[in-house]
Amino acid sequence: MAGSKYVYVKRFEMPDSLLPGTFTVVRIDGHGFHRFSTEHSFTRPNDERALKLMDQAAQSVMEEYSDIILAFGQSDEYSFLLRKDTKLHNRRHSKILSLLLSLFTSSYTFYWSKYFHEVELKYPPSFDARIVLYPSAKEVRDYFAWRQVDTHINNLYNTAFWALVQQGGESTTQAHALLKGTQSAQKHELLFSRFGINYNHIDVRFRKGSVLVREVQTHSTPGQSMYLTAATASPGSCDSASDNVPAVGAANVASREIRGVTGRREKVIRSVRVRHDDIVGNTFWEARPELLEG
Amino acid sequence: MAGSKYVYVKRFEMPDSLLPGTFTVVRIDGHGFHRFSTEHSFTRPNDERALKLMDQAAQSVMEEYSDIILAFGQSDEYSFLLRKDTKLHNRRHSKILSLLLSLFTSSYTFYWSKYFHEVELKYPPSFDARIVLYPSAKEVRDYFAWRQVDTHINNLYNTAFWALVQQGGESTTQAHALLKGTQSAQKHELLFSRFGINYNHIDVRFRKGSVLVREVQTHSTPGQSMYLTAATASPGSCDSASDNVPAVGAANVASREIRGVTGRREKVIRSVRVRHDDIVGNTFWEARPELLEG
Amino acid sequence: MAGSKYVYVKRFEMPDSLLPGTFTVVRIDGHGFHRFSTEHSFTRPNDERALKLMDQAAQSVMEEYSDIILAFGQSDEYSFLLRKDTKLHNRRHSKILSLLLSLFTSSYTFYWSKYFHEVELKYPPSFDARIVLYPSAKEVRDYFAWRQVDTHINNLYNTAFWALVQQGGESTTQAHALLKGTQSAQKHELLFSRFGINYNHIDVRFRKGSVLVREVQTHSTPGQSMYLTAATASPGSCDSASDNVPAVGAANVASREIRGVTGRREKVIRSVRVRHDDIVGNTFWEARPELLEG
Amino acid sequence: MAGSKYVYVKRFEMPDSLLPGTFTVVRIDGHGFHRFSTEHSFTRPNDERALKLMDQAAQSVMEEYSDIILAFGQSDEYSFLLRKDTKLHNRRHSKILSLLLSLFTSSYTFYWSKYFHEVELKYPPSFDARIVLYPSAKEVRDYFAWRQVDTHINNLYNTAFWALVQQGGESTTQAHALLKGTQSAQKHELLFSRFGINYNHIDVRFRKGSVLVREVQTHSTPGQSMYLTAATASPGSCDSASDNVPAVGAANVASREIRGVTGRREKVIRSVRVRHDDIVGNTFWEARPELLEG
Repeated sequence: MAGSKYVYVKRFEMPDSLLPGTFTVVRIDGHGFHRFSTEHSFTRPNDERALKLMDQAAQSVMEEYSDIILAFGQSDEYSFLLRKDTKLHNRRHSKILSLLLSLFTSSYTFYWSKYFHEVELKYPPSFDARIVLYPSAKEVRDYFAWRQVDTHINNLYNTAFWALVQQGGESTTQAHALLKGTQSAQKHELLFSRFGINYNHIDVRFRKGSVLVREVQTHSTPGQSMYLTAATASPGSCDSASDNVPAVGAANVASREIRGVTGRREKVIRSVRVRHDDIVGNTFWEARPELLEG
Repeated sequence: MAGSKYVYVKRFEMPDSLLPGTFTVVRIDGHGFHRFSTEHSFTRPNDERALKLMDQAAQSVMEEYSDIILAFGQSDEYSFLLRKDTKLHNRRHSKILSLLLSLFTSSYTFYWSKYFHEVELKYPPSFDARIVLYPSAKEVRDYFAWRQVDTHINNLYNTAFWALVQQGGESTTQAHALLKGTQSAQKHELLFSRFGINYNHIDVRFRKGSVLVREVQTHSTPGQSMYLTAATASPGSCDSASDNVPAVGAANVASREIRGVTGRREKVIRSVRVRHDDIVGNTFWEARPELLEG
Repeated sequence: MAGSKYVYVKRFEMPDSLLPGTFTVVRIDGHGFHRFSTEHSFTRPNDERALKLMDQAAQSVMEEYSDIILAFGQSDEYSFLLRKDTKLHNRRHSKILSLLLSLFTSSYTFYWSKYFHEVELKYPPSFDARIVLYPSAKEVRDYFAWRQVDTHINNLYNTAFWALVQQGGESTTQAHALLKGTQSAQKHELLFSRFGINYNHIDVRFRKGSVLVREVQTHSTPGQSMYLTAATASPGSCDSASDNVPAVGAANVASREIRGVTGRREKVIRSVRVRHDDIVGNTFWEARPELLEG
Repeated sequence: MAGSKYVYVKRFEMPDSLLPGTFTVVRIDGHGFHRFSTEHSFTRPNDERALKLMDQAAQSVMEEYSDIILAFGQSDEYSFLLRKDTKLHNRRHSKILSLLLSLFTSSYTFYWSKYFHEVELKYPPSFDARIVLYPSAKEVRDYFAWRQVDTHINNLYNTAFWALVQQGGESTTQAHALLKGTQSAQKHELLFSRFGINYNHIDVRFRKGSVLVREVQTHSTPGQSMYLTAATASPGSCDSASDNVPAVGAANVASREIRGVTGRREKVIRSVRVRHDDIVGNTFWEARPELLEG
């Protein structure tokens, strides 16, 4: 074959498989989103359309790659957790990184008009991505806690900041100066006393970010269905059912038949569901022990 | 800060900088494009709209990242060459890989309707990507030769195959059987004798793929402009000027002022240009010594 | 400084730190030891001098690097386990690999005459080394079980093989042929019925390999000392106390003062001790929970 | 096989091959040699025995591994250059690093008494090692220039320092203070005016370090031999022929028969030779173009 003379250049492709027995986290971050959000007039401090579009993109990724067992998103970032013993693309670093990132990016672009309606997408957005390996369940929990605590810190600050600017008539410079060095409690107090805002009543999506999990839905009789995991979740968890984005295609829904408690065969469907649970505490994780198991 | 307790998880992010003094090639490949091209009814053996869309996506990437000095694309793949001493994102592997891939992907999706007009994009496409390092100019040339020779081999086969099917009335199984084991000359002969097709008259884009370079355009007097590099290129090179995709935005065009031969200040604009040159031989490279220099 | 012009070459040294939160195992293997053992007339199937020299070299390494918490050796190989959260040389791969290997190698050469007395060392021996990371305690236990099971399999085979050759008058070819495909029980039976050898009475060092641990020795009153961990070890464990190699230097012994049960200050000395315990089962590990903890 | 249950732990051994087409440099450095040289009463500023022992250890390594084409040593460090296209152990990083380092270390220990005679080796010395990849000939030259310039800087300083202390009666603190901030010319002047030392007359070994190359020796007639490369080397190069360490064994000498200019078959022997050439300038390299070729 004529190509054979040059094919030696393939030998420069180095193996890059990920250490077995570790949890793989893929984190995707918006690139240049300060400019992007300004150009597209995102509302401040939170743009619900933009957050739902992020959730939609993440859901597309999670429906395509069944080894993703959890995702968490806030602002312009999303983190995906693959199960510890994933064999996806032989655990090749570049393959996993690039396929998840590429589908996320194209989904964000593809679904733009579904959430932004008449707002025209001015130019193609981009994201960067990295893979981080975590050896144990503790570090995985702490990773997601880190991201959600970060969500809280940022959102409380931004909520206070934009209240000062939009409702308080402060300049952005003044708003920054007023908030500098304040503790969490002081920001709560400021919001309530000056603007009548009870921070805890703000949309849970903004305060907690989005948590994507696969949930079992049984269909023993048409019309009757139940999210099993949701049912066992803590009372304090917040399931924004109305926000739930429908699965892109039935083909993407992992399903299998199990024999239910009554002995009848039941169709089990595990579909990706957007929640806004607390993932810092134990409740979420205790209700889903499979997330952190081998 | 409340987040500090968890921030230790950042220590698991490992450094991944690329070896200095080497050429970085980023190759992007369509993922699942057999299905994608079928679902979107791509014409066979080549769909000019799809190829131009790939070129457009590559051009967007090259205009955004000025350290990319060359790109080559064919079918559903594109390769980008960064200059040897690039400092882009401190040569971090994941950053470079992910940003180029993400912008390529979103550009492909964003510009879809510009090339496919009334054809609706049914679902978000995705690509994978890898980085390969090449220590020397020879290997870089051989890499691009490898890709262009591959283009030739595939396109000659596909052209013969689809002629047999579309014009010759053969089944795909028969067409494969007829071509099995044939040499290049036999395929040329088959195309000519049976279908009156002179392979060398087929659109150079299909035969050679697309080559993206930055070319200097001087404006000493409005209305007069000249692609300097194009002017010095070999007579045999094929510049499909009419195909040239305009730069996405003026901001993306690298420009600087130089003092021309007459001593007058001239505005030098280097814009990305789509060509279909032969890059296996020496002419292309000899006309652009800067590509392979440190 | 005159050197500054060239110092840029240091930028080609790439970072290589090991993933945090994982157990580091360094395995050292004899290179060309088939020839080495023949040239130095090692006794077959086991040369006690050679094994004790390996133990001595490993002990030197373990006394120098206090982050090594366990070592296991057999034949011409030794494995070292570093504690999960070691900060030794900032967890740099090459540093850890090379320093342990180098000290092992020089110790083997240095102590040669202590064990081989009048046998002259004909040429410098060498070893290779690799680092393997294990994310969890389970894999660490299985790694050491793998090595000890391997010890058993090899030693049983070699014992039978050399009995056939040395006592049975078989050629090496015949001996291989006789043993081919035999199960463990058949080799036991062969040894007993034909040569009167009860395999289980063979020196435990040969059957189990060597296990190096740090053991606490308290000195509350001169003359009274006790290996605390040894005392709590299982009855079945085999402590070849007489083989115990004394520490190379007092400086190498990790010690600290603790307050004993009687309230008196006691000097705690942890010294490296060579044992021949079973490390496949649970007893060894349950007596030393600190080995597998974070 | 009984071991199969645990053998899965081998899957955690990651591939680590070095990028093809690059030069591999292995640098070995003494670990804790400040203490080691003090404990063994090395003479200051240079101990010829210690330097020759380093050369001997390096020579052993170079005779064992024929893909090493050049080595340079000074003080307690040695660098080895492997040919660009080496296939040694499939270019596996850990294998190459560990085998060269281990043989170097054991050779240092093994040959100790040959150079230090009655001085007893008190404890096993150790070295660390790293691999650095260089993509091009320029960087390789600059790497070795960096090491030799470093040799010069250190040796000039140390020579002046120890002259002040040993002959000038200064304390070490005073000597450091006197030399602080001095330029090269000032140190030359100090040595000459105060101690009558012409620095350029000091043993070239101390000023230039040691360079190990393979040199061709032809034997067309018994008794007649000639180092071909040496003959073509520059007049200024310094070949300390009397220092030349004989090859450890004939088996290690690469040899082949060539047909000489007279047409007679001649035996070509390439043996490792210790030189003290300047390797910063061009002469050394121009006489040995094979060093930097693919």
